[in-house]
Amino acid sequence: MRDVYLLGLGQTEVGEHWEVSLRQLALTAIDSALKDASIEMTGRGPVPEALFVGNMLAPQLSRQAHLGALIADFSGLRGIEAATVEASGASGGAAFRQACLAIASGYIDSALAVGVEKLTDTVGPGVSGAASTSTDTDWEGAQGATPTAIAALIMRRYLHETGAALPDFAGFSVNAHANAKTNPNAMFRNSLTAEVFAKASMVADPVNMFDTAPDADGAAAVLLVAADSLGKLELKLSHAPVRVAGAAIATDTVALHDRPDPLFFRAANLSAGRAYEQAGIGPNEVNVFELHDAFTVFAALSLEACGFAARGEGWQLATQGGIGLKGRIPISTFGGLKARGNPGGATGIYQIVEVARQLRGDAGANQAPNPHWGMAQCLGSSGGTAATHILERVS
Amino acid sequence: MRDVYLLGLGQTEVGEHWEVSLRQLALTAIDSALKDASIEMTGRGPVPEALFVGNMLAPQLSRQAHLGALIADFSGLRGIEAATVEASGASGGAAFRQACLAIASGYIDSALAVGVEKLTDTVGPGVSGAASTSTDTDWEGAQGATPTAIAALIMRRYLHETGAALPDFAGFSVNAHANAKTNPNAMFRNSLTAEVFAKASMVADPVNMFDTAPDADGAAAVLLVAADSLGKLELKLSHAPVRVAGAAIATDTVALHDRPDPLFFRAANLSAGRAYEQAGIGPNEVNVFELHDAFTVFAALSLEACGFAARGEGWQLATQGGIGLKGRIPISTFGGLKARGNPGGATGIYQIVEVARQLRGDAGANQAPNPHWGMAQCLGSSGGTAATHILERVS
Repeated sequence: MRDVYLLGLGQTEVGEHWEVSLRQLALTAIDSALKDASIEMTGRGPVPEALFVGNMLAPQLSRQAHLGALIADFSGLRGIEAATVEASGASGGAAFRQACLAIASGYIDSALAVGVEKLTDTVGPGVSGAASTSTDTDWEGAQGATPTAIAALIMRRYLHETGAALPDFAGFSVNAHANAKTNPNAMFRNSLTAEVFAKASMVADPVNMFDTAPDADGAAAVLLVAADSLGKLELKLSHAPVRVAGAAIATDTVALHDRPDPLFFRAANLSAGRAYEQAGIGPNEVNVFELHDAFTVFAALSLEACGFAARGEGWQLATQGGIGLKGRIPISTFGGLKARGNPGGATGIYQIVEVARQLRGDAGANQAPNPHWGMAQCLGSSGGTAATHILERVS
Repeated sequence: MRDVYLLGLGQTEVGEHWEVSLRQLALTAIDSALKDASIEMTGRGPVPEALFVGNMLAPQLSRQAHLGALIADFSGLRGIEAATVEASGASGGAAFRQACLAIASGYIDSALAVGVEKLTDTVGPGVSGAASTSTDTDWEGAQGATPTAIAALIMRRYLHETGAALPDFAGFSVNAHANAKTNPNAMFRNSLTAEVFAKASMVADPVNMFDTAPDADGAAAVLLVAADSLGKLELKLSHAPVRVAGAAIATDTVALHDRPDPLFFRAANLSAGRAYEQAGIGPNEVNVFELHDAFTVFAALSLEACGFAARGEGWQLATQGGIGLKGRIPISTFGGLKARGNPGGATGIYQIVEVARQLRGDAGANQAPNPHWGMAQCLGSSGGTAATHILERVS
């Protein structure tokens, strides 16, 4: 199995991009990733050889499918291999995984993974209806159960079983907003206090407005290359590369009611376990963790599923300062889904970019202290799919 | 790069499956593929380790996205890696390519590629509107240019440049129907004559009703394993394996008007070229070719792009008997998209299954004489994406 390195990182600002097309967002992120890797976009060079697009809802919300070929062409990469990878909210992580597999296979030496989504500027159905296609439609979505409603069921049960109270979740969102303040690409750069959190109106009781992440538009891209091809490709590296030490996808039932334990993110646990095994580390070694805080209770459950907290105790990391930049396990270091914003299928690539920046020591005011190992995990629907990647600093 | 073998082949009948759900179609094909490989579906075994779903329009037409996790769970494979791969009409081929990459990478030893689509039994928008999201929406679909209308533009130009006349395309459809007659999974098992073809009404002038393939429901699945893991997996083989000798995806502009030459399927040419190179053969060695005959003119252009005919002469293979089971290059040997039916994202997997059956010598009345090399190629939209696979008999 060949080692895969991350060379280039790119992202657009996350927010409402009503004036920018889907393909333009993707191009901006790709251009930025190639420039970051000191590669000029000639459109005919050997780098990148393939493009994997993470997207969730463009066929419904922008009435545009077939994004692989469309974005390859618009980015001046006409002719290269391209396809779209979809796994609900884990689409970005799943596209990154495919890029890793493609390079590890030996078929190609370089690939771009780009995540792109427009959720605030749409044609056709609304976002809630479209996002409900990521649930088990026959049994959930068609009955009116949106992803937020399902998260509310999970949170209600979590409160009941763990003894956590509503104010105990404030720490996740306060931390996310604190970190987003110094991220120029974040959607919400305002401070949030526990007092304001406590007064927030309910979205789907007990999920309040600050428990949930905002729908957003945005694109992020990474350039990956085979470590053993670096010489052949004659790239001038402007940054130390970051190694993909673990890559895994796992699944669970999509329908919440089919799970033996609705408070156990089994796919998150399985995929993290596989990634840990590949990297030869465990949660104790991980220095920074971008998790899928689409809802505060998801952050708690992800921390538990990945071994950072015992079952039923994930929320305590937020109340005890364990998740800050200098805490036991820094999460949402650039704002997370909550405050950087959640552009659906792009989110998984934003997470990878953010972890890689941490490992480069290039995170500025958002820098965690000297991280060597970083982990990114994104979830599809309420954990029906989980894509987990472990990155390592190479130096 | 590890060799990848096809062990199990499965498919449902192609047609109108109003009474069968999307997930049930997929399960039937998967079950059939695992049985064909003599593997019981225990749901917890080491085979398969991953599932790649080729699908094109389910989020729009069935309001169900997130098919990877959904189908893995419903098939008793809960927990395994899964994702959906989309590349318009080439989605099936793209999913197969991802499965090949995953196994070649060394990360996993076995994978299922399943293509599934329901086009005749839908909720929400009609098929034409949904399929138009595979065009360049801003410039084509939103202006009312459906895939069929775009094919008509291509055919009109082809007639003008090549000197072919409308009756010259009959041979493609007559051949497809002749082969479908003995395929119990084909949608249209009736004979078609050149006389009936000539009287067919126009769908989008000059594309008549028999120039175009029917929208259909169906699912097909293949089980792939690493050749070097066959001993470890302790599989009892009931059929000689078929080797994946070449696998490639290439892209072109999605918008027809952006192409320097609208009569050159560049992505088909590029991906076939890459696949030939990997397999170490050329078109002269290919004994059977499942091509993307969504429209008769596409069959002609695919034959030209892949080196079976000179530019502008692909149609002559149909008028001169070159495409029959005993012709120079047998195509649509089980009916092709035209008569077996075109279930969108499943089509690419049907093609792979059909080529593999030919190489096994297991095609019954549809058997081409003793083929050693077979090729399958599916196209997204009017050739914006092409996925080409070359299979080899191992014996």
